[in-house]
Amino acid sequence: MAHQHSQDNPEMQQCIQMCQECHSICLQTVTHCLHMGGMHAEEAHIKLLLDCAEICQTSANFMLRSSDLHAEICRACAVVCERCAEDCERMGDDVEMQRCAQTCRRCAESCRQMAAMMAA
Amino acid sequence: MAHQHSQDNPEMQQCIQMCQECHSICLQTVTHCLHMGGMHAEEAHIKLLLDCAEICQTSANFMLRSSDLHAEICRACAVVCERCAEDCERMGDDVEMQRCAQTCRRCAESCRQMAAMMAA
Amino acid sequence: MAHQHSQDNPEMQQCIQMCQECHSICLQTVTHCLHMGGMHAEEAHIKLLLDCAEICQTSANFMLRSSDLHAEICRACAVVCERCAEDCERMGDDVEMQRCAQTCRRCAESCRQMAAMMAA
Amino acid sequence: MAHQHSQDNPEMQQCIQMCQECHSICLQTVTHCLHMGGMHAEEAHIKLLLDCAEICQTSANFMLRSSDLHAEICRACAVVCERCAEDCERMGDDVEMQRCAQTCRRCAESCRQMAAMMAA
Repeated sequence: MAHQHSQDNPEMQQCIQMCQECHSICLQTVTHCLHMGGMHAEEAHIKLLLDCAEICQTSANFMLRSSDLHAEICRACAVVCERCAEDCERMGDDVEMQRCAQTCRRCAESCRQMAAMMAA
Repeated sequence: MAHQHSQDNPEMQQCIQMCQECHSICLQTVTHCLHMGGMHAEEAHIKLLLDCAEICQTSANFMLRSSDLHAEICRACAVVCERCAEDCERMGDDVEMQRCAQTCRRCAESCRQMAAMMAA
Repeated sequence: MAHQHSQDNPEMQQCIQMCQECHSICLQTVTHCLHMGGMHAEEAHIKLLLDCAEICQTSANFMLRSSDLHAEICRACAVVCERCAEDCERMGDDVEMQRCAQTCRRCAESCRQMAAMMAA
Repeated sequence: MAHQHSQDNPEMQQCIQMCQECHSICLQTVTHCLHMGGMHAEEAHIKLLLDCAEICQTSANFMLRSSDLHAEICRACAVVCERCAEDCERMGDDVEMQRCAQTCRRCAESCRQMAAMMAA
């Protein structure tokens, strides 16, 4: 599977899409949180959103290149997405935060599956 | 308009989507061209695809942040996309190259409009 | 000059170094400003620092690839760096902000020269 | 240590510098290898250089943000750098390839230490 191109691999296509969606929502949520201020704009929360946006972008790029090493990045990406989801949930019942948390959880799940598939 | 968030701006949403699509196709095309070899794998062509992928990513990220300065980046992005489209067309009637060229042209047009809107 | 590799071009080497330094300081300053809170953590200021960090990274990468189109990116980078410098100065006499402002100014100047060299 | 800022952590400062150096050399080596052609421009080799450049950039950015999750990224970065070093050595005694291989090895070692420090 390692040598298959991403376009011919439906699971990888789906994981790329999840990572891109998660990247987009995390970046938009940074702007939302800075605008809200207060606990939303705390250092740890904004940094997690920036971390999550960046590793999702990198993970998507490895898969778009059909890189043989994408599983290493997907594994790290799943950890960051999971942590970001928890932190967004901590912010309460704000619609934007809930949407970001759900997207991060789905992306974490997709990246874990992609990493496990390579290890198999 | 500068202070409006990207989610509430349909033109910006569309330009973000074009930049993300162009970024994805350019990165996939790098792998395709390296695989083909020959003129497809020439230094100037691969570098243009990498340039285009990267500035499209940066341009999308500026708009996702609802940055006041996104027009500066969109203007530069349009130039790079246009040049990349020409170079892909030069490669002949390969389906992948034609698809990449068309996406680059549409992204260039979208970025030019976004830059002009801010200058108005 | 367009076809010369970055390693053999001292002006380009210096501009790469300025962009990398400016990228690093802007990212570190994001963390500093979020930690400070108050006006330092305002949406517009953090977004400018993120914008500046990202376009400096992209600009450095174009030059590291010895891209023919680096002047387009350097021109946009100079505008963003200049704006970021002004915003950092607005924050008062904080040592970190002054250091960030000065680095942004030097990077803007270096990028303007690089862009002008190509236009000549 | 997780909450210490990168500027006050000499080991992290050194790892940031290694990642930035490795990122720069890998990108310059892409241009060099495409220029050389032949085995240097093979798909697998160029993709590894692009992978290594990108994860080094992401790893440096996590540390510049003093991210609590930088160890996850450093661990993945070490794997990619190690693989890239092996592939560069495979290219023979070209001076540029040897320099790239050595930098990748040093970066891999630095990232492994950074990851281990957090796990301790």
